[in-house]
Amino acid sequence: MGPAARMYQMLRYFMGYVDAEFMPTEIESGKRFRPSLALLIADGYGVREKVLPAAVAIELFHNFTLIHDDVEDHDEFRRNRPTVWKLWGINHAINSGDMQLVIASEWVLKAGEVAGAPELSRTLLRTFGEVAEGQYLDFELASAPLDAANVSEEGYLQMIEKKSGVLVRVAAEAAGIAAGKSGEEIGLLREYGMYLGTAYQMADDYRSAWTTQQITGKDTCSDIREHKRTLPFLYAYEEMEGNARERLHQLYSLERQLADGEIQEAIALLDATRSRSRVLGKVREHAARAKQAAARLDLAPETKALLVGIVDMLVPEGKESAAVAVEHPSIALA
Amino acid sequence: MGPAARMYQMLRYFMGYVDAEFMPTEIESGKRFRPSLALLIADGYGVREKVLPAAVAIELFHNFTLIHDDVEDHDEFRRNRPTVWKLWGINHAINSGDMQLVIASEWVLKAGEVAGAPELSRTLLRTFGEVAEGQYLDFELASAPLDAANVSEEGYLQMIEKKSGVLVRVAAEAAGIAAGKSGEEIGLLREYGMYLGTAYQMADDYRSAWTTQQITGKDTCSDIREHKRTLPFLYAYEEMEGNARERLHQLYSLERQLADGEIQEAIALLDATRSRSRVLGKVREHAARAKQAAARLDLAPETKALLVGIVDMLVPEGKESAAVAVEHPSIALA
Repeated sequence: MGPAARMYQMLRYFMGYVDAEFMPTEIESGKRFRPSLALLIADGYGVREKVLPAAVAIELFHNFTLIHDDVEDHDEFRRNRPTVWKLWGINHAINSGDMQLVIASEWVLKAGEVAGAPELSRTLLRTFGEVAEGQYLDFELASAPLDAANVSEEGYLQMIEKKSGVLVRVAAEAAGIAAGKSGEEIGLLREYGMYLGTAYQMADDYRSAWTTQQITGKDTCSDIREHKRTLPFLYAYEEMEGNARERLHQLYSLERQLADGEIQEAIALLDATRSRSRVLGKVREHAARAKQAAARLDLAPETKALLVGIVDMLVPEGKESAAVAVEHPSIALA
Repeated sequence: MGPAARMYQMLRYFMGYVDAEFMPTEIESGKRFRPSLALLIADGYGVREKVLPAAVAIELFHNFTLIHDDVEDHDEFRRNRPTVWKLWGINHAINSGDMQLVIASEWVLKAGEVAGAPELSRTLLRTFGEVAEGQYLDFELASAPLDAANVSEEGYLQMIEKKSGVLVRVAAEAAGIAAGKSGEEIGLLREYGMYLGTAYQMADDYRSAWTTQQITGKDTCSDIREHKRTLPFLYAYEEMEGNARERLHQLYSLERQLADGEIQEAIALLDATRSRSRVLGKVREHAARAKQAAARLDLAPETKALLVGIVDMLVPEGKESAAVAVEHPSIALA
């Protein structure tokens, strides 16, 4: 392994292959959702082998972004394990993350070669750049004055499209490119991936605002605790007037995390508006659009049914029947 | 430019194209030494156009490493300007650096395409990974107990080969690959680049230990102030015995930077050994090996003379006549 073996072990830890002592382990280490999606569609087109390196590149890149994201957000846990920076310090987290991005780029190279489609490599890298743009927009949204133009549904959607949507989009798109599909078909794949990715992110933001650690693996109401400007807040703040608006402004302007009492107060303020139902409505809208795009794809009915099923699995709030998390008994404030 | 325009401006700032208010500027923004070297050799082989994207990729990657390096080392100034993290915070420095690495990878892709040599792209990325390994080894060297095995000339050389040598090596190598040269010729190019890169790094470490801000653009004796385990220290510590060794051990184990009086004391301790002359000897040895490799290349004599001249320009200590910095009047402790 060479003298830098330990750096690679840190990356293997984050991917879930070893524990913090670098001993083999089997833990819940991410859903591998993006590569699974890429390969599912690839199977539908009969081009699995051609898409494999792209699927690897996407998953490695995704995990790279999380390693740096944890540093940037000071997150100490992910997937119920200590984060890389928490275990080995910020410098190792930055640098081993950089290494993982280089490795992801090596798979990007291979992706174009194996698919016989150089544009696949270009598309992957262009998309990776968009993700970095999304992270930038996230920083800006987090630090802008509460009444700035980007602290709005529009600014939020633009941010999550880049930060969360485009990587799912390229996972869907990759198979289409490798299979040499038409521009129209690739457009539908992109639509499916983008709406699925944004629906998933909005559902996640819903859960991070209102539901508990047992469900999300994060702190209870972590996004409210950290007064994040996600859709649950934005919709509520947009509607509110007078004292309520002023108080929410105060709470969301604190330099520190909210205390438990303040969280309950903030939730009460949010729940006096239509925010919950509007967020769920937006999730459902994006989920429905993803399904509509899936239905029009040039794939066998079974594959299309799976693509629709993925939307319901990842975005339970997208099911008309459900809004599971909302009704789940454990969401009451712990 | 889109909503993330400001992120790209931060990168343009670091490259020296704009000032901190993003207004056009012309400043000393790095020597562009690596791409110049790549293009000089490319001209010698008559393949300039083929090597241009590789030269761009290398320079963008190099600057990416510096953006993250400044975060990791808490350096507030580089090239006499505030660093990215100092101006815009650590998160923007990490993320805009990531963006620059993605852009560098896009040029890597182009490099292989334009040269008609896919192995050029692979070699570039493999080398980028080695640089991250070198950064890892640098962290390890900095944090190891003073008597650990890697706190040694061997550990140091291994580290600077990866951290500093390989990127100069690939700058030289790129032209050989693009020109379809033999394995032997490419081996000589690699040798030239590696020895030039390590000679340069050792000369830089010499200057950062013993010379003043006017010369290096860094703090006076910055590497001694920060008790870095570079060759000047390693050679001295290896030779020392008794009280002197114990005192240097004390100074180099402090959790804080050395005060001015302690710096003078440390320099006196180092200068009671053969460290200075041994470091300069090692610099000269590597410089000489770079020149020997250059002499054997399949290039016109004028080009080879330029390659030798580059060694003398970047590594003045490599000239038998010189050791310029040593004799320069301004090196006396300010």
